[in-house]
Amino acid sequence: MKLDKIIGDRFKERPADCVVDSHALMVRGGYMKYVANGIYSQFPPLKRVTKKIEQIIREEMDRIDGQEVMFPVVMPADIWEESGRYESIGNELLRFKDRSGSKMVLGMTHEEAAVHLVREYANTYTKYPFMIYQIQTKFRDEARPRAGLIRVREFTMKDAYSFHTSQEDLEKYYDVCYEAYNRIFARAGVPEVVTVKSDSGMMGGNVSHEYMLLTAIGEDSIAICDECGYSANMEAAENITELENKLDRAEIEKVETPHKETIEDVCEYLHSDVKNSCKAVVYQKNENDEYVVVFVRGDLEVNETKVRNFIGSEIHPAVITEESGLKAGYIGPYNQNAKCTILYDNSLKGIENIVCGANEVGYHYTGVCMERDIPDAEYGDFTKILEGGICPKCGKHTIKISRGIEVGNIFQLGTKYTKAMGMKYTDKDGNLQYPIMGCYGIGVGRLAASVCEAHHDDYGPIWPISIAPWEVHLCCLRPDDEEVKAVADNIYDELIKSGTEVVYDDRKVRPGVMFSDADLLGVPVRVIVSPKNLKENLCEIVTRDKSVSVKVPVEDTVSEIKKLVEKLYADLNA
Amino acid sequence: MKLDKIIGDRFKERPADCVVDSHALMVRGGYMKYVANGIYSQFPPLKRVTKKIEQIIREEMDRIDGQEVMFPVVMPADIWEESGRYESIGNELLRFKDRSGSKMVLGMTHEEAAVHLVREYANTYTKYPFMIYQIQTKFRDEARPRAGLIRVREFTMKDAYSFHTSQEDLEKYYDVCYEAYNRIFARAGVPEVVTVKSDSGMMGGNVSHEYMLLTAIGEDSIAICDECGYSANMEAAENITELENKLDRAEIEKVETPHKETIEDVCEYLHSDVKNSCKAVVYQKNENDEYVVVFVRGDLEVNETKVRNFIGSEIHPAVITEESGLKAGYIGPYNQNAKCTILYDNSLKGIENIVCGANEVGYHYTGVCMERDIPDAEYGDFTKILEGGICPKCGKHTIKISRGIEVGNIFQLGTKYTKAMGMKYTDKDGNLQYPIMGCYGIGVGRLAASVCEAHHDDYGPIWPISIAPWEVHLCCLRPDDEEVKAVADNIYDELIKSGTEVVYDDRKVRPGVMFSDADLLGVPVRVIVSPKNLKENLCEIVTRDKSVSVKVPVEDTVSEIKKLVEKLYADLNA
Repeated sequence: MKLDKIIGDRFKERPADCVVDSHALMVRGGYMKYVANGIYSQFPPLKRVTKKIEQIIREEMDRIDGQEVMFPVVMPADIWEESGRYESIGNELLRFKDRSGSKMVLGMTHEEAAVHLVREYANTYTKYPFMIYQIQTKFRDEARPRAGLIRVREFTMKDAYSFHTSQEDLEKYYDVCYEAYNRIFARAGVPEVVTVKSDSGMMGGNVSHEYMLLTAIGEDSIAICDECGYSANMEAAENITELENKLDRAEIEKVETPHKETIEDVCEYLHSDVKNSCKAVVYQKNENDEYVVVFVRGDLEVNETKVRNFIGSEIHPAVITEESGLKAGYIGPYNQNAKCTILYDNSLKGIENIVCGANEVGYHYTGVCMERDIPDAEYGDFTKILEGGICPKCGKHTIKISRGIEVGNIFQLGTKYTKAMGMKYTDKDGNLQYPIMGCYGIGVGRLAASVCEAHHDDYGPIWPISIAPWEVHLCCLRPDDEEVKAVADNIYDELIKSGTEVVYDDRKVRPGVMFSDADLLGVPVRVIVSPKNLKENLCEIVTRDKSVSVKVPVEDTVSEIKKLVEKLYADLNA
Repeated sequence: MKLDKIIGDRFKERPADCVVDSHALMVRGGYMKYVANGIYSQFPPLKRVTKKIEQIIREEMDRIDGQEVMFPVVMPADIWEESGRYESIGNELLRFKDRSGSKMVLGMTHEEAAVHLVREYANTYTKYPFMIYQIQTKFRDEARPRAGLIRVREFTMKDAYSFHTSQEDLEKYYDVCYEAYNRIFARAGVPEVVTVKSDSGMMGGNVSHEYMLLTAIGEDSIAICDECGYSANMEAAENITELENKLDRAEIEKVETPHKETIEDVCEYLHSDVKNSCKAVVYQKNENDEYVVVFVRGDLEVNETKVRNFIGSEIHPAVITEESGLKAGYIGPYNQNAKCTILYDNSLKGIENIVCGANEVGYHYTGVCMERDIPDAEYGDFTKILEGGICPKCGKHTIKISRGIEVGNIFQLGTKYTKAMGMKYTDKDGNLQYPIMGCYGIGVGRLAASVCEAHHDDYGPIWPISIAPWEVHLCCLRPDDEEVKAVADNIYDELIKSGTEVVYDDRKVRPGVMFSDADLLGVPVRVIVSPKNLKENLCEIVTRDKSVSVKVPVEDTVSEIKKLVEKLYADLNA
């Protein structure tokens, strides 16, 4: 199509409210428009990008025997009440009443709808396994949308649900899906996406993976080991601590530590290393405000997600009252009599002669030895892995913490939803069983923005050809020159005829304007027809990423373009 | 794909809650599942149908220079407040608040979003004309969803918006779009869709057309003249009445009509023809409860839409209070002193010696002559056209009233939205102008159901090949017979290789089960491989609509199928 017909404005200035490059470039390039907090409209160039991403996803889902279905955006609360999530999910689940007063929700995910769709159908083992998926609008009432399409409230998502009669079968399919995801990201031009083990969060289930595009603007922290290839979301990465404490056993002594309420202050005051201390971090369970005290080595940070998963309920930082029996700032594991759940982190196992609170305002103990003094303690992993930490796979001190954007995820859900919603099938022996589920998501708009984030320069996105709004960008540098115009027009016609997607800039504007617009549209192959080159009977073909820059005879231009386009596709599928 | 893998159950019994055939067949065929009132999930066969319909629409919209965009489903109330529709639309606009308390709506149409998207872009006349469209989920909180996908609350719709600098240009594009719609319906297999003039309703604007599929189960009434081809929605069809009253003038007389409160009772009591009477129908304006009295000839019915459009505000049937000054059952045009808006229908023009209310409980007048007694009356068209009525185009008594399903509509919106939302452009002379809009809708799911309604038999849908879930349905009648299975397998492989969409039934079930499932899936080309035919080296090819039934040599089967498939497509595009 002609460039001057494309709906949307392109401009130079970086919008003040855009904190990440992909957002700034997609606003500057006429891709998207702000409608409300976390809600955008898409101009034609972005719609072209997202449509292509959807098609790649669709092909790969069909290839692994997925069947496309469609669930509603607006769902009745009752199926969410069946699963228990109507209550358990917070404000991000948008709840409202329809005109008749019935409780409804806006779909932010569709496990309930998937079970609802197939629970009568899949009533016997012969129907298994199967996978259904949809590509559709979702709404998640995020408290803090940010970074353009990276974290929005309304988004298009591919969500897939598989159903199985055994854990083995789920795992087999999970691996198949894992590979399909790798193909999707490779075809979309971001083969560098890494897979990390993750926490399942509100989805339930055990094993899950996130697909992360590593970038400094990412919202997630990922622990990566370059030595052995281990990677995991920080929420899920096991933190292995060595017993660094080499002190001798000592007797417990109660010492006065007036107004020293952080473990750092206390250790400085007592001339002790923070690594030889134990601190308490206190939470309350959301359901009944019961206290949960987590004891960890003084230099470590608690990983809330691990605590939440271990105790199996939502928690929040505690408000410590007098009645609790807890002495804020002076809580320690020895002589601890408050009524609460107590967790001991692995980092405290076997540690000797440490400083910790004495459960009395103004006092700490020294000389506490865990084995001797708290012999019944059971230990778990409740702390965050840190830069330079020990890799849980190869055991070396090689952990690096990177930032990443989650562009996809896959979960082994188990029977959480089928049990809650009473979906059963008859197995070979005539017994009723609950099917085992997996679910598999990819955010379409977020993937588009992530590709832009990973592949851009100061002047615009550098789209991979598979998802670029067009394949070829044709610039006619002097449309007022009859010969130049005729050659460019002819190339345009030939490309259209051959089925190439081409955007044609034949505006009477300066080359600078033409090229900056072309940079913003980020089309991979650029063809320039100019009076200067035509004098030598040449046209110029360059790629947006500057890896190719050639001049070819006018009569070969179309065939050379087509060859280059084919090569770019082939590179992605390699 | 293999038939036994298709997600969804097929069954024989007509579901009790399905009042129309398309709904019953699409439930029986495993196409859709009820989730909530007017909200359905789509099983794979229906998703395949709707995807194909969407692609046909997309191709035809692109062909008339439409650019696909995407608007949000969830919109902030403010843009609807700008247009005034946040207030003016009733409960069908779903309003709610998000977690931060901001007022939001669910999109039931996107004029506001369209203007919002382009109002900065299209600031000069050189950008015009242009058209943007989207295919997306909408939600309309219908009071009475019915008939399966015919009238739902959540639906997928293609909505297009064009912008112009002159009424002439709009009209030119409107005609282009009119033709594109005809192509869409022809390609979707329902060339019989008729166009009718319609009322614009809440959309505003003047000229509009609806595309109607005529069927007894339709929700809309359409006035059609077989003589001259005139057709219009009953809401919009002008009602022409002849002066049938041939009575002589008489003097006004007040007569007692105790307890005769309907015009029929009164006329019977007075031995007068209802055609020689005048009745009053009373409404109130929604905004201020002001009374609106419509006087029409006693035998006619008021068309509320015409009244609403004439007075320019929403109305409801009146609750007549004592303070109103109106005497329910005895309201007449003569000596009428109540404070209210009074409308006179064309049917009363020049009528003489009629019966009408005397504005006094228990009394009517006889002998009222409109010209003599209410000389200042101004007349308009406020009544419904009826079967046998006069065609507004050819003037004959040829009007037939048919029922139809609205499968699409096109509106000339004028400047209603651009003015309200302050969208302006600079014209050639440097003056600011409001662009003129058109809008163009097609409901995807409703079109699928309508095609099914128009083309089915007792056993299932008869899908046109262009939107059928598959092109070919292959039945292997005896999969336990090695030779039969080998031939069928081979046909399946060959068809897949040639890119044909084929569903393959190789289940070990009786032919009856196989054929009734095939009928429910409604695939146009059916191929039957059976031991009996194979003895003569033949396969059977039949069409779902029974127009083709041939036996062909085994070795020619694939090529014959492909020829038939091509022919079926060609027939639709003819």
